[in-house]
Amino acid sequence: QIVSEKLGKSSKTVDPELDSQIENLREVKRRYEMMLSLTVSLATNFQNTVNMQKSLSETFAGLAQRSPDLIEEFTSNSETQRQLVRQGEILIQDFNQFTSSLKTLCQKTMEDTLLTIRNYEAARLEYDAYKFDLESLKSVPHNEQKLHEIAILEQEVINYREKYENLKKDVAIKIKFLDENRVKVMKKHLVLFQKAINTYFTGNGEALCSTMKQINEANSS
Amino acid sequence: QIVSEKLGKSSKTVDPELDSQIENLREVKRRYEMMLSLTVSLATNFQNTVNMQKSLSETFAGLAQRSPDLIEEFTSNSETQRQLVRQGEILIQDFNQFTSSLKTLCQKTMEDTLLTIRNYEAARLEYDAYKFDLESLKSVPHNEQKLHEIAILEQEVINYREKYENLKKDVAIKIKFLDENRVKVMKKHLVLFQKAINTYFTGNGEALCSTMKQINEANSS
Repeated sequence: QIVSEKLGKSSKTVDPELDSQIENLREVKRRYEMMLSLTVSLATNFQNTVNMQKSLSETFAGLAQRSPDLIEEFTSNSETQRQLVRQGEILIQDFNQFTSSLKTLCQKTMEDTLLTIRNYEAARLEYDAYKFDLESLKSVPHNEQKLHEIAILEQEVINYREKYENLKKDVAIKIKFLDENRVKVMKKHLVLFQKAINTYFTGNGEALCSTMKQINEANSS
Repeated sequence: QIVSEKLGKSSKTVDPELDSQIENLREVKRRYEMMLSLTVSLATNFQNTVNMQKSLSETFAGLAQRSPDLIEEFTSNSETQRQLVRQGEILIQDFNQFTSSLKTLCQKTMEDTLLTIRNYEAARLEYDAYKFDLESLKSVPHNEQKLHEIAILEQEVINYREKYENLKKDVAIKIKFLDENRVKVMKKHLVLFQKAINTYFTGNGEALCSTMKQINEANSS
């Protein structure tokens, strides 16, 4: 059926509105997967950063002990890196929560709808194939035997159309629910993602400011 | 000479104070190289982070255009990532300045002193080897011919001692200057390093706060 459709020999049943919704869902999934892969890489990279900050904090602390002339500079740099690690570990948890929800959305929720879509597309092909066979049969001169075959095939076409129509309804409903669910989930997690980043930066900003103030006071006193 | 020293056959000229300073310099260099390697990795990793934030900002912006229901959330997340990239690029420059000064300190300044130390150690070996030969020669019964050899060798020992003493002075002076230079350079760059991190976090903290405020106002109005 696919081949004869491509050769233009048989016609294809189309639902332009649903087909464009399906096309859109596939595009959305592609983009969400891109966002997922980027945020996963970012989280991994950030985990590495935190590990390095931990080592750097220890190295600075070790150097502070051995360098009486640089004790303040090494100590406060060590303290700074330790502070970044503390807030960083919270941010990693938030990153993981974001990527985990996004993973569920892409790999479970969207995938479930896409499975129904693939069944719907298979049903459409079957239905069109039977319809094409029926038309071919009708187009040649027919006797009693042929009439019997046509009647059987007509019943088959009705059955396959029903299967196709049912799956079309399923797809439309699933796409609608998926869309609502996606918007709800993403609204929540995008806000949380941004809040997490804000907390990380303002938290560190304030803590570092107060560390600097202490150092300046210690230096001037 | 090294072998006979190890076997305890010949004695070794030592200057405990200078030797402990040399030992200390080697330890300091090892620790500074550790700090250098960590900050280089951190800078590379951070460059990767900034590149990912750039892509993520573009991905969020693309999704904002395609998602009327999530336009605010995607837009402000895109803006947040763009903000992090802006400040991140400044921090990378500061990181590079820090690692570049540290590299010069480890690979040029310290290395230059260590070269003089290696020459000093070689001169010490030569001097002790000649001294050992002279003592061996003196310890056996000697005739006219031997006395002549001893006189020549005594002159050699004096020459090698002079070379050794000169290099010892050089090493002591170089270590002193290196130490002063190291403290000066590190004091400056450790303060700059910490300031750079502070600027990055407070700068981002403030900018993100004001973005959040704008979003909240836009939402409530």
